[in-house]
Amino acid sequence: MTTDLLHALRHCVGDRHVLTKAQDRAPFELDWRKRWQGHALAVVQPASTAQVAEAVRLCAQHGVTVVPQGGNTGLVGGGVPDASGRQVLLSLRRMNIVRHIDADNLTLTAEAGCLLQQAQEAARQAGLMFPLSLASEGTCTLGGNLATNAGGTQVLRFGNARDLCLGLEVVTADGLIWDGLSGLRKDNTGYDLKSLFVGSEGTLGIITAATLKLFPAPRGTITALATCTELADALGLLNLARRSLDAELTGFEVMNALSRSLVATHFPSIRQPVPVAPWTVLLELSSTDEDAVARDRLTACLTVASDQGWIHDAVLADNLAQSQGLWHLRESISMAQAAEGLNIKHDIALPVSAIPDFVAHTDAALAAAIPGVRLVNFGHLGDGNLHYNVQAPIGADPARFLVEQEALANRIVYDNVAARGGSISAEHGIGQLKRDTLPTYRSPIALQLMRQVKQALDPQGLMNPGRLL
Amino acid sequence: MTTDLLHALRHCVGDRHVLTKAQDRAPFELDWRKRWQGHALAVVQPASTAQVAEAVRLCAQHGVTVVPQGGNTGLVGGGVPDASGRQVLLSLRRMNIVRHIDADNLTLTAEAGCLLQQAQEAARQAGLMFPLSLASEGTCTLGGNLATNAGGTQVLRFGNARDLCLGLEVVTADGLIWDGLSGLRKDNTGYDLKSLFVGSEGTLGIITAATLKLFPAPRGTITALATCTELADALGLLNLARRSLDAELTGFEVMNALSRSLVATHFPSIRQPVPVAPWTVLLELSSTDEDAVARDRLTACLTVASDQGWIHDAVLADNLAQSQGLWHLRESISMAQAAEGLNIKHDIALPVSAIPDFVAHTDAALAAAIPGVRLVNFGHLGDGNLHYNVQAPIGADPARFLVEQEALANRIVYDNVAARGGSISAEHGIGQLKRDTLPTYRSPIALQLMRQVKQALDPQGLMNPGRLL
Repeated sequence: MTTDLLHALRHCVGDRHVLTKAQDRAPFELDWRKRWQGHALAVVQPASTAQVAEAVRLCAQHGVTVVPQGGNTGLVGGGVPDASGRQVLLSLRRMNIVRHIDADNLTLTAEAGCLLQQAQEAARQAGLMFPLSLASEGTCTLGGNLATNAGGTQVLRFGNARDLCLGLEVVTADGLIWDGLSGLRKDNTGYDLKSLFVGSEGTLGIITAATLKLFPAPRGTITALATCTELADALGLLNLARRSLDAELTGFEVMNALSRSLVATHFPSIRQPVPVAPWTVLLELSSTDEDAVARDRLTACLTVASDQGWIHDAVLADNLAQSQGLWHLRESISMAQAAEGLNIKHDIALPVSAIPDFVAHTDAALAAAIPGVRLVNFGHLGDGNLHYNVQAPIGADPARFLVEQEALANRIVYDNVAARGGSISAEHGIGQLKRDTLPTYRSPIALQLMRQVKQALDPQGLMNPGRLL
Repeated sequence: MTTDLLHALRHCVGDRHVLTKAQDRAPFELDWRKRWQGHALAVVQPASTAQVAEAVRLCAQHGVTVVPQGGNTGLVGGGVPDASGRQVLLSLRRMNIVRHIDADNLTLTAEAGCLLQQAQEAARQAGLMFPLSLASEGTCTLGGNLATNAGGTQVLRFGNARDLCLGLEVVTADGLIWDGLSGLRKDNTGYDLKSLFVGSEGTLGIITAATLKLFPAPRGTITALATCTELADALGLLNLARRSLDAELTGFEVMNALSRSLVATHFPSIRQPVPVAPWTVLLELSSTDEDAVARDRLTACLTVASDQGWIHDAVLADNLAQSQGLWHLRESISMAQAAEGLNIKHDIALPVSAIPDFVAHTDAALAAAIPGVRLVNFGHLGDGNLHYNVQAPIGADPARFLVEQEALANRIVYDNVAARGGSISAEHGIGQLKRDTLPTYRSPIALQLMRQVKQALDPQGLMNPGRLL
């Protein structure tokens, strides 16, 4: 049976694109965080939507389950196979064509295997902008971004991947091709199938292409850092900035003191232009105005915040290089944290208004439960999304800390999230990592509705089983 | 059986809130356009989510189908019962409480029966704005807006009802309550159930409450009219305005010459501050800046457009009253058209870039097929959404015209829409009106996926049968 399937898959995509040797499969079988080591029957690399459809039909005929994979940069183990050696890993990376840019319609249609950076670049060459932006953009693919409804640093203004997607091409669990590519801003002809597949982590079908929204490129972009004593002050600044800058506010990130100290310790060459403070905010303003006008507007906002006593030290980047330097500081936190040792990561969302209370209570509860615990708390405050990460006490063995404290830390954090109407996964998804935790924190009725949808669209359970649900 | 059901429903919601007499039911049984006259077993008016759930369970037990209704302003017959006298019409109007405004989180949670205007007003009182805006806002309800994914005049910047919705409370077809109310900007814990129920026209469950996005209220708003000779010139202006005004461009409407002439004929008191031209654009800019700054920016944009030869006459409103006057002109087209006589309405969407070609070809095809035909073409050009309406030739009997030409006109329009990747329903939905047309213009695979979802969530077919699918 397996031989028949492999033979048919080779006939479908070509001998060279069905990888069965261990060394060929290896890069696809281990996730980016090296947390899940899978073993696939084969890695299949189709080059067209028709080949994806045929491969899915062949797998279905043989009762073999399918794990789709993009750039393999996921953080929840959603894109690597299980250890059974019986799953087909379908890599979309060869489907990497930007099919079309319609500048007058502000849309780009591209295949799932396009790198995010490739889509950004294609938009830029057309004088436009594709605003999805995340640390892995040089490696992650549009298909993966959509399957996980990726977030990133520009959600405040432009939304998540789902909000940026107008239409999809999908291979269903039956191996049929749904051509739902569409450049329409309005379309009320039935259920929102597009939004259903986006964020479904490959469990309902395989996204093979998408039509995405583009935006005019901003003329001026100004980045600033400002320090706050209290998180509530950072919220005061956020509300002020939203009122005075409106859609020009494209970034509002926060970092606690330890986040910045770890960067200082492990990457001393990174410039830290304001002193370490309890909280540091990174703001970005993107404008159709010239830099000077944008700068005046951001300065006026920061002056009001300073008069209110919400911020202390503040600095505006003078040029693009300085701006990139501020973002580099923000984006180095994860690496600094890794250099400090293994830690317990959380990707949580809360109503913005609940964040100060959440942080106060959860910090205290963790300190009481795990004496000496250190919290590396940073993230997209403007979206209510914190990477509220728990680091071992100084001197403790990080690996042992992880084994001993992860369950307790998760419970404390997630219980406090749930008590305030928050989410245990803001932007990373569920995958394998949080699959068993999800039922504790989502309503049984929501889960039942999801299972009904899954059963309806993938009755044989062939699409990425064991993930999400 | 029927007596048992009515008895149980009376016990559930109170005697006064189960209407069975013809004169009491009448306002709920005829749609706003007086196109569909239904006959319900009873009109049931629950006051709480628990009552909605109980009523649905009772109907399910008796095998009686349920038609949810909000303000009964729908344009596609989705909210009125059929003529069988065997359906329960569930009016959500008594559930009209704004439950909560979280100003720091920019969210409002309200029940389905709230009038749209009521939600707008509640936001305004909190110093904020709920941007959904449409002609029927004094009568339509949030539940209806969400069930139909309503559009309106601010979609260009703020999106449709679905884009404005963060969370829902829904009574499922099983009569269970899904509490999916959420004020989160990011939540990747499973399938996007919210987007599935929004726009499902009551066929998957009953929306009882929602959490909606609010925005800072703009400080300055400037409205302008400008005339163009060619539709392509209006697109030139649109692209220029998007590049130079970005998110401050909150409205971009278009009207053809006949649209304006009909208003002039039937409402001569409405001011027409620029001469009738082949095309007239209404632009609106909303800004956090003072009026004067906003005015300078819009003027600069129009000056460039004028230099390019894209626009001829242009006028900016000097104050709020003048601005409302310009919108009044635009919003009087439907009434003027009605005064002129029955006509064939289309609510279509196209990629913006395809609109000039679509209009040229479709105008010509209709003129050839129906000599003397008149086209009242207006709509939300910035969203690619036209109300491309077909009026009888001068002197022809409108009623007879409708009977004789509607099928032909629809076919010509929809074929030309489909050939350019457009939609036969941009913002009004499918309902009864376009249910039989939908299969011609949506892919069989999309329809099959929708039927699978419908079957999964409403296996007994109790929720608003005969609508949409």
